[in-house]
Amino acid sequence: MNFTQSLAAAWQKNNSLLCVGLDPDPAKFPVHLKGQPGAIFEFCKSIADATAELVCCFKPQIAYFAAHRAEDQLEALIAHIHANHPGVPVILDAKRGDIGSTAEQYAVEIFERYKADAITVNPYMGKDSVDPYLAYPDKGVILLCRTSNPGGSDLQFLDVGGKKLYEHVAELVATRWNTTGQCALVVGATFPGEIARVREIVGELPLLVPGIGAQGGDVEATVKAGRTATGTGLMINSSRAILYAGKDENFAEAARQAALETRDLINRYR
Amino acid sequence: MNFTQSLAAAWQKNNSLLCVGLDPDPAKFPVHLKGQPGAIFEFCKSIADATAELVCCFKPQIAYFAAHRAEDQLEALIAHIHANHPGVPVILDAKRGDIGSTAEQYAVEIFERYKADAITVNPYMGKDSVDPYLAYPDKGVILLCRTSNPGGSDLQFLDVGGKKLYEHVAELVATRWNTTGQCALVVGATFPGEIARVREIVGELPLLVPGIGAQGGDVEATVKAGRTATGTGLMINSSRAILYAGKDENFAEAARQAALETRDLINRYR
Repeated sequence: MNFTQSLAAAWQKNNSLLCVGLDPDPAKFPVHLKGQPGAIFEFCKSIADATAELVCCFKPQIAYFAAHRAEDQLEALIAHIHANHPGVPVILDAKRGDIGSTAEQYAVEIFERYKADAITVNPYMGKDSVDPYLAYPDKGVILLCRTSNPGGSDLQFLDVGGKKLYEHVAELVATRWNTTGQCALVVGATFPGEIARVREIVGELPLLVPGIGAQGGDVEATVKAGRTATGTGLMINSSRAILYAGKDENFAEAARQAALETRDLINRYR
Repeated sequence: MNFTQSLAAAWQKNNSLLCVGLDPDPAKFPVHLKGQPGAIFEFCKSIADATAELVCCFKPQIAYFAAHRAEDQLEALIAHIHANHPGVPVILDAKRGDIGSTAEQYAVEIFERYKADAITVNPYMGKDSVDPYLAYPDKGVILLCRTSNPGGSDLQFLDVGGKKLYEHVAELVATRWNTTGQCALVVGATFPGEIARVREIVGELPLLVPGIGAQGGDVEATVKAGRTATGTGLMINSSRAILYAGKDENFAEAARQAALETRDLINRYR
């Protein structure tokens, strides 16, 4: 099964559009884990085990591991998820982007070393910088389109002949780059109108949506703007609100509760 | 001394605009190193020691290390260069780009863990995705502007109101993002007319130029298009042509010879 199929199966099986973002920040860990060897793996593993049946995918962010020399713990985490929660794909959020020969090395890193099921990629360097990832037919390639940070508009909102740059990227990916059905797009939750615009451009293409808050309003607007006709098509990411829902030894149970509530809130508007 | 000052000092001291790119590919190593533990470090260390007095900077490409679980060898390599060749700055070519909180983690990875003097960054996510790197006042931040790969034109050549996207990025960095003098730009060598256009826009801003071939014509056109009034302003990168100039135990001497010839060829046109 390739990434797109696994994602579709997980949407159904877990009745969920929720993606749990694994951005481990040791400063926020429960006291009993702080300073322990392997704490990053232990923390993320506990979160994954507690939430796996409530999500459509997991998304570890590689920067949080690399800043702590914890590449081995990231490898162990993805292996653990694959072994214990088959059917839940893992997106490695790495936002890579480089010329072909270098992208080939990144593809080895992400798909062969870490064995991730999908990667996030920056489109600025164009199609041939994306091809080395597409050369792995089972893997997903999720292109940055519209990001939810304040500076996201600096380039993405530029007018490129009657449309915004992010709309052009959406069109390019949907009509030209996605010839093998492996692509998806990152579209931030800050402006639901823009999610709706991207959905209009890309048809059924899956959208990875970071940036939802704890507020139901955001979730409602995001889901209504981005869902497909079948009420799927979205990976709605939540990281901090789930990872750090609890502060003590019950952190995993608190994360499960937060994930359950977020999944159900999302489902209310599908 | 900050990155920009170190670079200017190295231009003078070594009379060189050459940047040696450290993209170690174990398949191309000399036989005596193949399959040896620590071969990536040993290979790059030998190249660095043989060429340090001929360059203005080194540029390891992180993907080549990460694909081989060689993060420890990358750390050791940068530490070796700093200890043995002080005054030669090290650019870690990582092309990162992410929201602020994640960029802070990448900045820890690149500047605190690897202790690189500068990083390459993708501008697609805008100014606040660059700020966490600029928060390290001694470090350099080199933004992708115009890349030399075939797909580089897919986005960078789009018309954004009477100018190309890459020209807009050059203008944005020179006039808005570079308030602290830490910025530089990546501009590929494929189209010298575009290097000249970027130079016109950015004044004295340093340009990192990948993509020169072994042909003198490319070098001549690149230098004439990109040099500043004082005959500096460029980091002209060569990787494979220097790293793999020799195939046997004399590979480091062959690399030194290739670096010497490239440096002198560049200097002919300054």
